[in-house]
Amino acid sequence: MTVAVLREDSVAAAASVDQQRLWDRLAAMAKIGAIPGQGVNRPALSPEDIESRALLLSWARTLGLAVSVDAIGNLFLRRAGLDPSAPPVMTGSHMDTQPKGGRFDGIYGVLAGLEALEAMDAAGVRTRAPIEVVAWTNEEGGRFPPCTMGSMVFAGARTVEDFAEVHDNAGIRLADALAQTLAATPDAARRPVAGPVAAYVEAHIEQGPLLESAALQVGAVTGIQGMRWFNVEVSGESAHAGTAPVSLRRDALREAVAMIAALRELTADPSDVTRFTVGRMLVTPNSPNSVPSHVLFSVDIRHPDRATIARLGEAVEPTCRAHARACTVTVTPTLHDDPTDFDPAIVGLVEAASGALGLPSMRLPSGASHDAMYLSRLCPTGMIFVPCERGVSHNEAENALPSDLAAGARVLAATLAELANR
Amino acid sequence: MTVAVLREDSVAAAASVDQQRLWDRLAAMAKIGAIPGQGVNRPALSPEDIESRALLLSWARTLGLAVSVDAIGNLFLRRAGLDPSAPPVMTGSHMDTQPKGGRFDGIYGVLAGLEALEAMDAAGVRTRAPIEVVAWTNEEGGRFPPCTMGSMVFAGARTVEDFAEVHDNAGIRLADALAQTLAATPDAARRPVAGPVAAYVEAHIEQGPLLESAALQVGAVTGIQGMRWFNVEVSGESAHAGTAPVSLRRDALREAVAMIAALRELTADPSDVTRFTVGRMLVTPNSPNSVPSHVLFSVDIRHPDRATIARLGEAVEPTCRAHARACTVTVTPTLHDDPTDFDPAIVGLVEAASGALGLPSMRLPSGASHDAMYLSRLCPTGMIFVPCERGVSHNEAENALPSDLAAGARVLAATLAELANR
Repeated sequence: MTVAVLREDSVAAAASVDQQRLWDRLAAMAKIGAIPGQGVNRPALSPEDIESRALLLSWARTLGLAVSVDAIGNLFLRRAGLDPSAPPVMTGSHMDTQPKGGRFDGIYGVLAGLEALEAMDAAGVRTRAPIEVVAWTNEEGGRFPPCTMGSMVFAGARTVEDFAEVHDNAGIRLADALAQTLAATPDAARRPVAGPVAAYVEAHIEQGPLLESAALQVGAVTGIQGMRWFNVEVSGESAHAGTAPVSLRRDALREAVAMIAALRELTADPSDVTRFTVGRMLVTPNSPNSVPSHVLFSVDIRHPDRATIARLGEAVEPTCRAHARACTVTVTPTLHDDPTDFDPAIVGLVEAASGALGLPSMRLPSGASHDAMYLSRLCPTGMIFVPCERGVSHNEAENALPSDLAAGARVLAATLAELANR
Repeated sequence: MTVAVLREDSVAAAASVDQQRLWDRLAAMAKIGAIPGQGVNRPALSPEDIESRALLLSWARTLGLAVSVDAIGNLFLRRAGLDPSAPPVMTGSHMDTQPKGGRFDGIYGVLAGLEALEAMDAAGVRTRAPIEVVAWTNEEGGRFPPCTMGSMVFAGARTVEDFAEVHDNAGIRLADALAQTLAATPDAARRPVAGPVAAYVEAHIEQGPLLESAALQVGAVTGIQGMRWFNVEVSGESAHAGTAPVSLRRDALREAVAMIAALRELTADPSDVTRFTVGRMLVTPNSPNSVPSHVLFSVDIRHPDRATIARLGEAVEPTCRAHARACTVTVTPTLHDDPTDFDPAIVGLVEAASGALGLPSMRLPSGASHDAMYLSRLCPTGMIFVPCERGVSHNEAENALPSDLAAGARVLAATLAELANR
């Protein structure tokens, strides 16, 4: 591997990254929505999300960053460039978590971006283009499906209005939760959704075991596997569990179980590459002695190969229909992301920056979806992975080392400085 | 069939039953917890349950009935007998409903009992033994499993304390909801749980199609099929839906689906007599892109044959264990009711009273469970069924004819008067 020569101020910015400051901010954020087992439950657009936004904005103000927010609640922290008319280089990630989430998924990318900006300040580095740290709204989709909602709207793939009527498990409308969240940051300037972006680089924990196994601190991410999401709604008829003959029932749960078993057959993969998950299921009326009249369940299928994910995605609806019996079934696609290849120049730059900073890296694909996927539709995009313990994520036990997190932030600072000085 | 000779005042009591008054009271109760489609959602120990208790007590006071309540919230309305030391003849049913319940299941038995007492007043009928109308707490078990809780405690099969820590789907403790309910009827005298009972007769809609098919207005119920309830809790580990290899997952929903499929195999019955229902399922964390860490589901199995229900009940835990894979599973029996045969003398009396009143009847078993099941452990017990439309129950569309409901109340009035004058 050739060790590229970085600009002097890019190296200076990286050198000014403060491991302890980054770790302390991660710890402060981890208190918001803390759950037992060192986990975090910070649903999108919740009171905890609002609290984390307030904390982020308090740090941004101290650093003199210009703060703005768009209609889907994406928060932008802007460090001015020497050329105010230049499109910004962006970095960032998300602050929401899974219901049983960890302390690093998402929030690390936001705080690594903030750390990169503060490191540039400390090193006296100015850049030609402005740099913006973005906290994308609702990347997880755990409360309001689908995931990567904020970056999806920013990229113009969907509109805010498309999601207004999405309801969480408690029946709360997204539009109402969003309005509350926006009202809680009245001093953030409103900015239009979208706008030109020069480049996007996102730092994230790997959420897989490859870097840890290879004992490397940095991953240059080559792309993201394809993903298809569906909501399957099965409708039958409520009946008495003691009197209704089994043969005559229109039992929504019984048929849902048959559908899930068939989908599992469909996605069975001896090579263990295909990912198939039913993570969410809501049963109505949900009483032991009433035959269920309605079941809603989620389907999440992922695969890195374009043809395979297309074939599996197309088969979901007919597979469910084939097992509906006397029930009716509605299959609604809620997310359709083809496999994404990141920009080879950005992948190369991340790799080169790691080398120049003395941090050996590897190239690797992402099994998880990220906001970078939608940004890659707008501009040259890449990601920086750092290891996490045993690859565990979407779990309270998610863990990462302060030194690895700082290493990723150093590579990010250098990469952003390079991109913003082109 | 021999038409038995009823006492004159038993016939007079039956003749004084007022179809319109009974129907109006049913309609008034149906407003409490009304849901679209003419249904009712009145969970046990809820604000709606408290409201229905208040309405019942207002009617009881007008009739001069003595009101008392026990520690599980069972409400007793007592019409004095000529011999105050005689154990009471009891009738009644329940006022709670399924989440998507109807206007007749349960409440009909309570209001038919009240109508029988008012008819005796109107006919000037006095009885030797007192007669008590009982509204049993939480017969449905839809909010706080298991079902038939009030009568179970009254019969001494379990204690109030056994159920204190049962939680509803919203996490509310039964003990707290019960305390609120008891506090809402401060003028009802507290009475001990249990006490001597001379006989028990409960009126109920059939919840099955037999009477309607036979075009008969009255069913003399011979018994109740056996029932086993279980809570199955599957524990795995939350993980990322995009990164965790399927082969390494401890997916609680995936294994729960396999268990349910296996239980369905276990209970498959070409003769369509066995009833198997999974009516309730709670998934944690219930997010589309998190592998489920916990699933709780209910199992309800019923069969009229003692040996069969015993064999099926015993097989539930090993069947679940066999499909747990890397998850752990806990199977907790929550209800174990062997098949019940009602007292032949009571069955015969109901049949004879029907005949004497010119209402042709049939004998039939009950597919549903009822409070009468636990009362049959204490005293000679029977039930009176009336038809319901297409046998539909545990469904908003549940329906019954005013004339059929009045016919059942007439048989009840005559039967109670006979029993209380023995």
